[in-house]
Amino acid sequence: MPHRAGSLATVANAIAEFGGVIGDVTTVSVGRRESIREITVEVRDKPAAEQLAVTLGGLEGVSIHWFHDRAFIAHDGGKLEMRSTREIKTNQDVRDVYTPGVARVCTAIAEHPQIAPRFTTLGRSVAICTNGTRVLGLGDIGPVASLPVMEGKAIFYSQLVGLSAVPILIDTKDVDEFVETVVRIAPSFGGIHLEDISAPECFEIERRLIEALDKPVMHDDVHGTAVVTLAAAIAACRHVGRRLDEAVVGQIGLGAAGWGIATLIKDAGAERVVGFDPMPAARERAAASGIEASGSLEDVMAVADVVVATSGRPGLIDPSLVRPGQVILALTNPDPEIDPDDALAAGAAFAADGTSVNNVLGYPGIFQGALQAGATGITTEMKRAAAWALAGLTVESELVPEVLDPEVHSCVAQAVRQAAIDAGATGPAV
Amino acid sequence: MPHRAGSLATVANAIAEFGGVIGDVTTVSVGRRESIREITVEVRDKPAAEQLAVTLGGLEGVSIHWFHDRAFIAHDGGKLEMRSTREIKTNQDVRDVYTPGVARVCTAIAEHPQIAPRFTTLGRSVAICTNGTRVLGLGDIGPVASLPVMEGKAIFYSQLVGLSAVPILIDTKDVDEFVETVVRIAPSFGGIHLEDISAPECFEIERRLIEALDKPVMHDDVHGTAVVTLAAAIAACRHVGRRLDEAVVGQIGLGAAGWGIATLIKDAGAERVVGFDPMPAARERAAASGIEASGSLEDVMAVADVVVATSGRPGLIDPSLVRPGQVILALTNPDPEIDPDDALAAGAAFAADGTSVNNVLGYPGIFQGALQAGATGITTEMKRAAAWALAGLTVESELVPEVLDPEVHSCVAQAVRQAAIDAGATGPAV
Repeated sequence: MPHRAGSLATVANAIAEFGGVIGDVTTVSVGRRESIREITVEVRDKPAAEQLAVTLGGLEGVSIHWFHDRAFIAHDGGKLEMRSTREIKTNQDVRDVYTPGVARVCTAIAEHPQIAPRFTTLGRSVAICTNGTRVLGLGDIGPVASLPVMEGKAIFYSQLVGLSAVPILIDTKDVDEFVETVVRIAPSFGGIHLEDISAPECFEIERRLIEALDKPVMHDDVHGTAVVTLAAAIAACRHVGRRLDEAVVGQIGLGAAGWGIATLIKDAGAERVVGFDPMPAARERAAASGIEASGSLEDVMAVADVVVATSGRPGLIDPSLVRPGQVILALTNPDPEIDPDDALAAGAAFAADGTSVNNVLGYPGIFQGALQAGATGITTEMKRAAAWALAGLTVESELVPEVLDPEVHSCVAQAVRQAAIDAGATGPAV
Repeated sequence: MPHRAGSLATVANAIAEFGGVIGDVTTVSVGRRESIREITVEVRDKPAAEQLAVTLGGLEGVSIHWFHDRAFIAHDGGKLEMRSTREIKTNQDVRDVYTPGVARVCTAIAEHPQIAPRFTTLGRSVAICTNGTRVLGLGDIGPVASLPVMEGKAIFYSQLVGLSAVPILIDTKDVDEFVETVVRIAPSFGGIHLEDISAPECFEIERRLIEALDKPVMHDDVHGTAVVTLAAAIAACRHVGRRLDEAVVGQIGLGAAGWGIATLIKDAGAERVVGFDPMPAARERAAASGIEASGSLEDVMAVADVVVATSGRPGLIDPSLVRPGQVILALTNPDPEIDPDDALAAGAAFAADGTSVNNVLGYPGIFQGALQAGATGITTEMKRAAAWALAGLTVESELVPEVLDPEVHSCVAQAVRQAAIDAGATGPAV
């Protein structure tokens, strides 16, 4: 663009008129008459980006050198790399980490398997296992197309708690095959994180893997979501001076996430949990877990003090159903079951959507704590401890703590570790 | 020890008398009257180390603060960590590598699977798959006890060629189960490196996986060893002015490694390859691959110009069998079939043991080249190209190039990549 006063304003105005939201603006180079800027703009979709490029290129003196989707740039070359914890510089280093030294470590582990978590990665590794049958809001896109999500999950394990997480894409939709595959490769990893597996298969897969393996196994979409949501519900109640354990909780939507939330909130001591789902199978599963399965959304809204909605259906809750004093968490992303402002206008004491309720707050610390304790599984007590730790770290004006703060994850891990040790849910000491 | 002249000499003498070989000596601290030193000593085994500590502690003014096996120190906490290729610092970073940005990348891969190697780790990842049934010289120690070896292999992938390698321990000895497990998790990785699987199962496992998968599959103990040994044989012939393709090659030992070497040398153009193994099944397998299977060691020694021995039996070759002008590579570690000095004294033109012949010279560049080419498999041409590249990089006085030199691995990768492209053994271009 021309290097003179007003140039950037002209471009910014054009972007604003187009409906784009400007992020960072970086000056790449400044010449005597022209400057090159990199401008990050949030637009609706790819055709909109292309159209905006044409629009801006049509401004006087402005040309578009290059435009691209930030996400693709951030994914170029893949997001993960397995690396050595130590640099190998000398022949002696080779003899220590490889033959002949490694043979002594192998022999020691063969004789005393309980030392394996100390002298291998087993003490801090997690497999993120999926078959790609229910990825984000995209549905069944298959194993390979789900890999960017698994790599994303793994990044947070590494950066937030220092665990080594490996995406394992399993090419089968059959429950038996999935379970037997994970069981066979389970010796490779300290913990098994299940991810993005469709319901109802995910329930049986998780149940059978927990039974078969004496290491932490958790389906994040069910239990990770439940932990973070329980934390948010505790914080929301605290904002309005309520106690969750004296409240009637209504759960709208009893899919994988909803079922997990309802059962954890029940286990966490809520007086009564009433749930609704249009699917009879979902209601039956919830009832089998001690949730009161109600026949209608209206009934749930009529009795609940605290409402948690994970229905996947934007605008499902009509403001007329809101009762004065209710706490409402409408968590479907990106568009909630009811706009928080509408809920508050209808008399709710507190209302929030799912923007800040991120699973990344839960799983890294949960698995880190479980592995640190040498836990043989992830118990309800450990999940409750994680939720209370998160709620305790939430500042007054927020629903959950800051997701990129490593201190938060360290506290969650510490709470989970302690809960595992208190419950005696740990393996042999090393 | 006392901080005065002669102290270290006294200790060094005591170590020498004990038969220990001193490596590094590091001064940890120096006081007015005493100094603390860390001394690396190579001894036979653990009891010897304990006895040496007692001996040294008995010297006047000397006390042992601490002693430990270097290998265990080098393994403490495990040797690998999966990390992010980019640091996640801002909320915008999270939105690029995780939701919502990641969904656009997933959707693009679902629509155009051929872009997966570019926008995920698939373009540079390898699974190191084993069931731990034949680990080093230790035999069947099971999957978990083999993990330190697999982590060692992965370190070299990372450090030498920048590939991301993941140990996958498969808890089964059944060929069908092993194959079906690897096939099911194969979408997770760009290549499949098989390691430390006992013969004869390893042959069928590799064959069936090559058939089932359209990505590079290689059993390193067979083909990696063959590539590095072929390179050494070419270099050895060059040292004495011979050509391998005009030589009769004798292969002593037709196990997994020996079979791989014999067939690759045959494929590389050796006029005649004669092999011997005491096991009839091994001889039959070799014969089926075009190797002349001889009934005795003596017969092989009597006709071979170049002898390669991988029998696992120290001292197997009596010097009386050596013929003048022979090239002898006695590769069994740590004690060879014939001492190179004895072979030379008996008239050999060139003789070497297996000290420097390290698989680490082969597999990293082979898989890197295959992945860079988008190869759908690892062909004989690619293996030959790797061997010739290694031989070309070997300086006059050596058998193979320097294992820790990244330039060596980069050349191997380049040669393999070119061979794959020349042969058209590549998948769709990205």
